Amino acid sequence: MPELRKDPVVGRWVIIATEREKRPSDFKSEPQPVRAEFCPFCEGNESKTPPEILAYRDRQSRANQPGWRVRVVPNKFPALQIEGNLDKRGDGIYDRMNGIGAHEVIIETPKHEISLTASTPALVQEVLWSYRDRLVDLKKDSRFVYGLIFKNVGASAGASLEHTHSQLIVTPTVPIAVAEEMNGCETFFKYRGRCLFCDIVDQELSARDRIVMDDPNFLAISPYAPRFPFETWIVPKRHSSHFENIQRFEIEGLVTVLLTVLTRLEKALGNPSYNYIIHTSPFDRAELPHYHWHLEIIPRLTRVAGFEWGTGFYINPVPPERAAEFLREIG
Amino acid sequence: MPELRKDPVVGRWVIIATEREKRPSDFKSEPQPVRAEFCPFCEGNESKTPPEILAYRDRQSRANQPGWRVRVVPNKFPALQIEGNLDKRGDGIYDRMNGIGAHEVIIETPKHEISLTASTPALVQEVLWSYRDRLVDLKKDSRFVYGLIFKNVGASAGASLEHTHSQLIVTPTVPIAVAEEMNGCETFFKYRGRCLFCDIVDQELSARDRIVMDDPNFLAISPYAPRFPFETWIVPKRHSSHFENIQRFEIEGLVTVLLTVLTRLEKALGNPSYNYIIHTSPFDRAELPHYHWHLEIIPRLTRVAGFEWGTGFYINPVPPERAAEFLREIG
Repeated sequence: MPELRKDPVVGRWVIIATEREKRPSDFKSEPQPVRAEFCPFCEGNESKTPPEILAYRDRQSRANQPGWRVRVVPNKFPALQIEGNLDKRGDGIYDRMNGIGAHEVIIETPKHEISLTASTPALVQEVLWSYRDRLVDLKKDSRFVYGLIFKNVGASAGASLEHTHSQLIVTPTVPIAVAEEMNGCETFFKYRGRCLFCDIVDQELSARDRIVMDDPNFLAISPYAPRFPFETWIVPKRHSSHFENIQRFEIEGLVTVLLTVLTRLEKALGNPSYNYIIHTSPFDRAELPHYHWHLEIIPRLTRVAGFEWGTGFYINPVPPERAAEFLREIG
Repeated sequence: MPELRKDPVVGRWVIIATEREKRPSDFKSEPQPVRAEFCPFCEGNESKTPPEILAYRDRQSRANQPGWRVRVVPNKFPALQIEGNLDKRGDGIYDRMNGIGAHEVIIETPKHEISLTASTPALVQEVLWSYRDRLVDLKKDSRFVYGLIFKNVGASAGASLEHTHSQLIVTPTVPIAVAEEMNGCETFFKYRGRCLFCDIVDQELSARDRIVMDDPNFLAISPYAPRFPFETWIVPKRHSSHFENIQRFEIEGLVTVLLTVLTRLEKALGNPSYNYIIHTSPFDRAELPHYHWHLEIIPRLTRVAGFEWGTGFYINPVPPERAAEFLREIG
């Protein structure tokens, strides 16, 4: 059973992943590159993954058989375990609980594609619907409070399989990074009476120098203070605190912007490793006036070193105005 | 002039390093490995670095000539610039200031050694004294509020030169990671009336299962909730909030523990890339009852992926009790 432990200094939770336990000798070689030979995510290899939780498939096809377009399965080596109770307890000055949660893999296409950009917009729409459907379903479990949808592409971004896929991890506490973001937005709201992200959209639309793409429903920008070169945010123009409340008419715009931005990043940077992450509100909050869901894309081009770990400052050698200009022009 | 920009959501500062500006094509190749051919840090090559700020050298030797044991020089490509005013200003909802600060390199030995552990304890004592002397000097400048001493070893940890060295970056604001750590310690102090790190030392000394090394003046432990496998903290047993107030009798103990722990990590993990960071109090605070300086060592064995960036949770496949046991036994 994995264990959740709380750092007593900053309150950060750490998952001690006993199911994935490693010995020191496992670290002596460089981290493995992405595996390419046998692919458990390809159509026809359904038996090599745990049984599916959700699949969008042809009417006449059967569960865990070919005929699907998007398929969601439990992670074979989950960071958190779905069954059991939290059993929160102290250990002197420390705090721990059982590592309960969910860890799922969204297989985005039955074909062995290594980039989401190889898919059709119609298929990518289904990927986004699968994110939503899984969040809505997991929200019903009262042990869970936060669902994070993310994607790791390339070895430097932490991917271990190349077949294009996303992941969903559901945690039993609000993650510290989410709490910090929500607190920042709440402080702004209390002071100014407006949503910070709505203000960001307004200011970027009038300044225009950090816009990557301006769609009727979504704005893609290089943020004002990006941690990483070519970091790009996709922000809905309509205020909404929860990704899972996305409207049907918005999904189409999001697919267009996401595919366009990813294609341009691939072209500009030579198929870089990257992560994307959906920033959304915790399960137990109703619609919030001060928080605004969005998607952040982080190309993994630079290395995080001692200065960043020690301070939380980041050194970025590409001004966002230059990154945005480049991503506009390459389009 | 580098620019400091504040992320409006979480309040994190980012350095837009215009002096180091890169084009997209600079990222198309993998990050460069550590350079090994010509070494500007070796004795005899003093003219290849900016003029020295401090050197411990033989009496008869001259500045920027051979004859030194430890040498501190400005970073040739500084993240922050020493001259100028902060010129803090707004930009709509955003905040920015000039990238003023200091960025120095501590060359730890005149010989081309790639690990600090190749040095004698007497020389490593001088390295630690040079850290202290530089902090004490930079503290006098009222524009500066925080000094971070850190070390990057190996390409995965962000090093670009292999000759063993440390760095010092001084910032004009309290870094967010430091503020969070100090706030956590202050909250604990207000609630319990004791220093959190003093309590950690006590609990670890009685539990004993996370101790790596127990010296009369310092305790090396695998922390209770480590982000990374084999993460190790070296904590002084005597309460003190500022590293630069270290006592002469403590320096010797710190050198012994630091060299022992680094040697064991190198042996256990096959000369891993790592960072070490001195966590200490801001310049403008007097001695604090609630904060306790310490040194954190982070071997860079795993990759930070989308889940970690999105949540601030970390997944660690090595329980700290196992890591500590291994590092005790290999000794």
